[in-house]
Amino acid sequence: MRSTFIDTATIIAVGSELLTPYRADSNSLFLTGRLNDLAIEVQGKVIVGDDQKMLAVAIERGLNDADLIVMTGGLGPTDDDITRDTLATVLNAPLVERQEILSLIQARFAAHKLKMPEINRRQALVPRGAEIISNGHGTAPGLWLEWRERVIIALPGPPRELEPMFDGQVLKRLALRVPSLRLARRVVGVSGRAESQVEEQVRPLYARWKERDPVVRATILGSLGQVELHLSTRASNLREAEISLNLAVEELVGALGRDVYTTEGLPLEQVVGTRLRSHGLRVALAESCTGGLLASRLTDVPGSSAYLDLAVVTYSNLEKINLLGVPVALIETHGAVSEAVALAMASGVAARAKADIGVGVTGIAGPAGGTTAKPVGTVFIAVAGVGVELVKLFAFRGERDMVKHQASQAALDMLRRILDDHE
Amino acid sequence: MRSTFIDTATIIAVGSELLTPYRADSNSLFLTGRLNDLAIEVQGKVIVGDDQKMLAVAIERGLNDADLIVMTGGLGPTDDDITRDTLATVLNAPLVERQEILSLIQARFAAHKLKMPEINRRQALVPRGAEIISNGHGTAPGLWLEWRERVIIALPGPPRELEPMFDGQVLKRLALRVPSLRLARRVVGVSGRAESQVEEQVRPLYARWKERDPVVRATILGSLGQVELHLSTRASNLREAEISLNLAVEELVGALGRDVYTTEGLPLEQVVGTRLRSHGLRVALAESCTGGLLASRLTDVPGSSAYLDLAVVTYSNLEKINLLGVPVALIETHGAVSEAVALAMASGVAARAKADIGVGVTGIAGPAGGTTAKPVGTVFIAVAGVGVELVKLFAFRGERDMVKHQASQAALDMLRRILDDHE
Repeated sequence: MRSTFIDTATIIAVGSELLTPYRADSNSLFLTGRLNDLAIEVQGKVIVGDDQKMLAVAIERGLNDADLIVMTGGLGPTDDDITRDTLATVLNAPLVERQEILSLIQARFAAHKLKMPEINRRQALVPRGAEIISNGHGTAPGLWLEWRERVIIALPGPPRELEPMFDGQVLKRLALRVPSLRLARRVVGVSGRAESQVEEQVRPLYARWKERDPVVRATILGSLGQVELHLSTRASNLREAEISLNLAVEELVGALGRDVYTTEGLPLEQVVGTRLRSHGLRVALAESCTGGLLASRLTDVPGSSAYLDLAVVTYSNLEKINLLGVPVALIETHGAVSEAVALAMASGVAARAKADIGVGVTGIAGPAGGTTAKPVGTVFIAVAGVGVELVKLFAFRGERDMVKHQASQAALDMLRRILDDHE
Repeated sequence: MRSTFIDTATIIAVGSELLTPYRADSNSLFLTGRLNDLAIEVQGKVIVGDDQKMLAVAIERGLNDADLIVMTGGLGPTDDDITRDTLATVLNAPLVERQEILSLIQARFAAHKLKMPEINRRQALVPRGAEIISNGHGTAPGLWLEWRERVIIALPGPPRELEPMFDGQVLKRLALRVPSLRLARRVVGVSGRAESQVEEQVRPLYARWKERDPVVRATILGSLGQVELHLSTRASNLREAEISLNLAVEELVGALGRDVYTTEGLPLEQVVGTRLRSHGLRVALAESCTGGLLASRLTDVPGSSAYLDLAVVTYSNLEKINLLGVPVALIETHGAVSEAVALAMASGVAARAKADIGVGVTGIAGPAGGTTAKPVGTVFIAVAGVGVELVKLFAFRGERDMVKHQASQAALDMLRRILDDHE
């Protein structure tokens, strides 16, 4: 016996461009997040081209596999847009022209002082019995179809149309079709440890969380220089879900300590920015091998002008000397990629900008420039100011952009820890 | 009647993490590129979780749909790794332990001075009759299976294992199973025009190319601040394919003129870098709203230290004045976001670094800081040097990071055009 609730979904992305080497289906990530929030599990995803026969097969299989099919794409006005026709065939529900859609599309063109091209008339055709989901951001309406105990939702491909349509209209309709469980979700960010180290540390917690009521689910995701733990719980009310989740987050912080930089899913640069702002401190950056990436990440945070005055990228020794006041002798004795020069860059840029804290990064991003003593990936990062002088040596692996990214991540993390210690 | 050649493929990605909101399948883009190079068309993609029953269904469907199934993931040593077992069940080919795999895995651990965990023994199990594809970068071997007239290839999930395995071992085996058509491919990059403008311009060419022998296929891909046209031809010999493709590229350049920045798929920052290097010119950057992104993009190019000495991010007026010599009066009269200040930043940073060309970027990245006269997205970009003084006003749309990206793209494009005119 099937539940009358929607438990499971299949996502079908339609479009030949999604079968090229150049474009991945990204809508399904958004949709999966929203469906999971409703406690609907995505059992599978299918990507098909603009081919009616193949799409028909995919829809039939989807109806067999899951309670809900969410389709994306193929609702445009051209011959390549096959979703409407294929649904009509598979569900044996002939297309009918809906005057209210036609009027909306015509109005949309009129608002831009354009006449509706005849081709757009096709977008007013819908399989008989379908309900229309209006589109505030484009001409293609979405479709909601019921077939036996299944639901099929067809949404337009462009994210700027699909996302508001889902959040504005689909979400609340779907919510009526799932058990009234509330979901709580937290993302914990960890830096300074490898994914395997984090996993080892938290495995005992996983086991404990599985036994809890409500169960806490966890996913671990490692990327360059950081690890994220995605935790979620579902319960009949939100408070219950949150209590269970908060306990799990506390246990995680207990196990991982200061390596946790956020329990709210914030990016590291934003965490650093918030700390700088709350301490009323200003930072200045002197970058060599990161080439501006550290500055660019910090300035990705809105309002970062409040705490970042100056960043300089000094590739050449001359600029390190002229602009940052790095003593020539230091470079001659230790080389530009050295502990001493990183420190002199950090304190030099802080002095120049009259900032409270300076950060200096010097290293070898590659692919050329490495030596036996200082291979590609060798990076010195220094932080100077607020009574602290700290320099660390890193040996990063990977390509030029990976070295740049890891070095920017390590610099942000050093800043974060120093700011945490600052009173 | 089926061809004995492999014409069509289905890609099956296995892994529950690919059914979360956090991780997309990216291997299929790499695989699609390689399969298309062999003239194998990817008809569909399927993503399933770590669920034997669902994977079995997906494999059966794949065998029905296409000549070739390429599977990725699910070859690890844990209980969640179900590819081997499921293949054994579907193909009715019981698992057998292969001593040569076991020895390789043990040797791999021994090389790291580790004892092989018992759990890894599972990776030496393969469905009877499978051929082994050795893995130079991990413990999981790939599998090549023949079933009736179908081929199934199972590859490990991590790209650093999958990609060399495919290129080193799979490609040449597959090449024996396809008609000996040669593929030529070119990527043409266009800046300074919207996707729809490019499309309008090249639509007449598309029609012409379809009639050619060999046919030229084209895909257009727009992203923030640039448009790419991916062209390909297949012919019985490479020279024939290339002649046809070269003609198409020439026609494209004829239609789009100087808006084409590459016909070789190079990123814009690399094109600019190559021009700077070949002219023997050095550039210096003064960034405000792009916050170091322009410097970071230019320094993503290996060897960029040859032409970039200095980049500064001057968020504050004080640093614009002190470091770049922007006259106080200019800022007071025109504001920091103005044509005059952009120009003064460009010439100021060039003078300071004794560079041949200076670039100045000042604008409002948002979300705050906009006014009626200068809304968020207002950006002035100036280039000064080599006898040129040019400043342009842009009105970009989108979020902070989108404004930053578009501004960096526009600055690189201005540099490119000026360098092209330079002799």
